[in-house]
Amino acid sequence: MSTDPVAARHLDRHAWVDGRLVRALGPVLAVEDRGFQLGDGVFETIRVHGARPLELGLHAERLAASCRALEIPLADGMEERVRRAIAELIAADGLDDPDDELSVRVTVTRGPVEGRGLLPPLEARPTIAVQAWRVAPVGREVLERGLHVSIASVRRDPQNPLATVKTTSRAEFVFARLEARRRGADDAIFLTTDGRLAEATSASLFLVRAGLLSTPSLDCGILVGTTREWILRWADRVGLRRREALLSPDDLFAADEAFLASSVAGVVPVTRVDGRPVGDGRPGPWTMRAREDREAFARSGEG
Amino acid sequence: MSTDPVAARHLDRHAWVDGRLVRALGPVLAVEDRGFQLGDGVFETIRVHGARPLELGLHAERLAASCRALEIPLADGMEERVRRAIAELIAADGLDDPDDELSVRVTVTRGPVEGRGLLPPLEARPTIAVQAWRVAPVGREVLERGLHVSIASVRRDPQNPLATVKTTSRAEFVFARLEARRRGADDAIFLTTDGRLAEATSASLFLVRAGLLSTPSLDCGILVGTTREWILRWADRVGLRRREALLSPDDLFAADEAFLASSVAGVVPVTRVDGRPVGDGRPGPWTMRAREDREAFARSGEG
Repeated sequence: MSTDPVAARHLDRHAWVDGRLVRALGPVLAVEDRGFQLGDGVFETIRVHGARPLELGLHAERLAASCRALEIPLADGMEERVRRAIAELIAADGLDDPDDELSVRVTVTRGPVEGRGLLPPLEARPTIAVQAWRVAPVGREVLERGLHVSIASVRRDPQNPLATVKTTSRAEFVFARLEARRRGADDAIFLTTDGRLAEATSASLFLVRAGLLSTPSLDCGILVGTTREWILRWADRVGLRRREALLSPDDLFAADEAFLASSVAGVVPVTRVDGRPVGDGRPGPWTMRAREDREAFARSGEG
Repeated sequence: MSTDPVAARHLDRHAWVDGRLVRALGPVLAVEDRGFQLGDGVFETIRVHGARPLELGLHAERLAASCRALEIPLADGMEERVRRAIAELIAADGLDDPDDELSVRVTVTRGPVEGRGLLPPLEARPTIAVQAWRVAPVGREVLERGLHVSIASVRRDPQNPLATVKTTSRAEFVFARLEARRRGADDAIFLTTDGRLAEATSASLFLVRAGLLSTPSLDCGILVGTTREWILRWADRVGLRRREALLSPDDLFAADEAFLASSVAGVVPVTRVDGRPVGDGRPGPWTMRAREDREAFARSGEG
C-alpha cells in the first residue's frame, strides 16, 4: 500500500452505487454487469461548483433520453437521486470547500444479467453509479497557448441512431484520444462520414469568422451538448451573429477563432489543427469572452 | 434469495478474474474499471466442446491484435492462461460432461484507473475476465425454419480503424438486436455507410447463388471471423466456388441460400430478410452441408 498522501486520499475516495457509498476502487460490480461486458450503458458528466450541480435538470433529461434509446428502464426521480448522491459524496469525501470544482459522472448500465449474448432480457435491474472528482480549473498556460487538435481517423455517421446518445461504449473516443496523443495533439476532432466537422471527443466545436459564430448542426451526428445550447443563447445575448451549419475542415482552417465547449472544462480555445494555426494561432477575443461569461454563469448558481 | 434450482445453480456459477475464481454475480470489479466506464476493452468468444477450446490459438491472436489497437498492454502467454482459466471453470462448475458445449468469453479491459476522462494513463493494469456458459446446441426448429433477419439502421464505416477490432463497446450491436426484436426478427444485418452488406451482429454472412459462395470482403468494415476463415477453406475443400466481394442487399434478396457463421453457434441458415424470403425461404443444401461439416470439425478436437 502506498504511503503517498495523494494516493492514500484516492484510496479513501468513495463512489455512490445503487444507493450506497462504496470505495471507489473496491470490488463492487459483478463481472456480468452489461456495462462491463458490452458497454451497454449511458452516462452524463456534470460540473459541480460550490456543491451546486450545474444544469442538473438538463443532464437528467438527456440521461433519460439516452436510456430510452437503449431500452434501459430508468426509475423516475433521477434528478433528485443524483442530487442526493452528490451531496453524500461531497460529505463523505470532504469536497465541500466553497471553491471546490467537481466533475461528477452519473453512469447507468443495464446491470447484471444471467445470460450471455447481445440481446438483453426484457427485464433489467440497472446499475446506477455516481462518482465525483475534484478538478483543477483549466490552467492559465492552456488558455494562453490554446489546444492543439488533430482530425480523428474515426468518423461519425450522421445517420447513426446512437450518434446523439451518450453511451458508455466509448472505445472509438478513447482511440481518437490515443491517436491524438501519438500525434502530439491535446484532443481530436471528428468528421462525419461525408467530411463535415462534427465535434471533439468530449466537447462541442465552435468557430468564429468575421463576427459570425458557427457550430456544426445537429445533422452532423453530434451530441446535443448542454453547454452548446448555452453558447448559442449567449451569442444572441451578446449580439454575436450565429448559425448551426454544415461545416468543413476548410471552415476550421479559415476561422479567426475556434473553441471547444463542454460541461466541466467550459470554453477552451483551439489554436492549432493538425499542426496548422487557426487564425493568428492565438486564442481569440470572442473565445475568451465566452469563457469568462460561462465561468461567471457556472459560479452564479443560476444553472 | 430464490429457491428455484436453476437460479440457485446460477448463483453458484463462477467467473475467473485476474487469476482467481470468483462468484459470477458477486462484487468483483471496481466502478473505476475503464471497461465499465468507457467500454475500453476487448473480448473473444470461444466454443468449448468436451472441455477442448476450439481454435484457441486464433482467438488468442485476435485478442492480442485487438489489445494492440487500443494500446492495452497484454502480458505474454495469454493462450496458456486462458486454457488454464477454462480448465478451472470447468472443474469448479462441473462442466466436464464430454458432451457439454460451452461458450467461453475472454474479456480484457484497460482496468481500473484513478483519474477521469477518455485519455488513459500511459500505464495500465488490465482486468482479465474469463466466463463459461453451458449452451444448448442450435435447435432443430431453428435449423428447419431458419433465422429471420432485418437490416440494421446502424451502419458500419469501412474506414473505421476499430471496425475490425472486437471491443467491449458494443452498444450499437445491442441497439441493432433491440431494433431487430422490435421488428420481430431474430438478428440484424449491418450495411456499410456506402450500402454494402457487412455482417450480422455477432456472425459473418454468407450467400450462395448458382453454386457460388459469396461473403463480404474485408474492405466492408467487418471482423476477420475465425469461423469465416474456416468456411472459406471448407469451400475450397468441397469444391464450392467462392469469393470475397462487395455485396449489396440485392445480392442477398437474389441468393439461393444465405447463412450466418460464428464460433459458438456455428453455421445457421437465414431464410428471411426484412420479411422477404431468401431463395425458396427454406434452409439450402450448401448451408446444411457447411453446418454438418463445421459441427464435425468442432467435435473432432482438431481445431
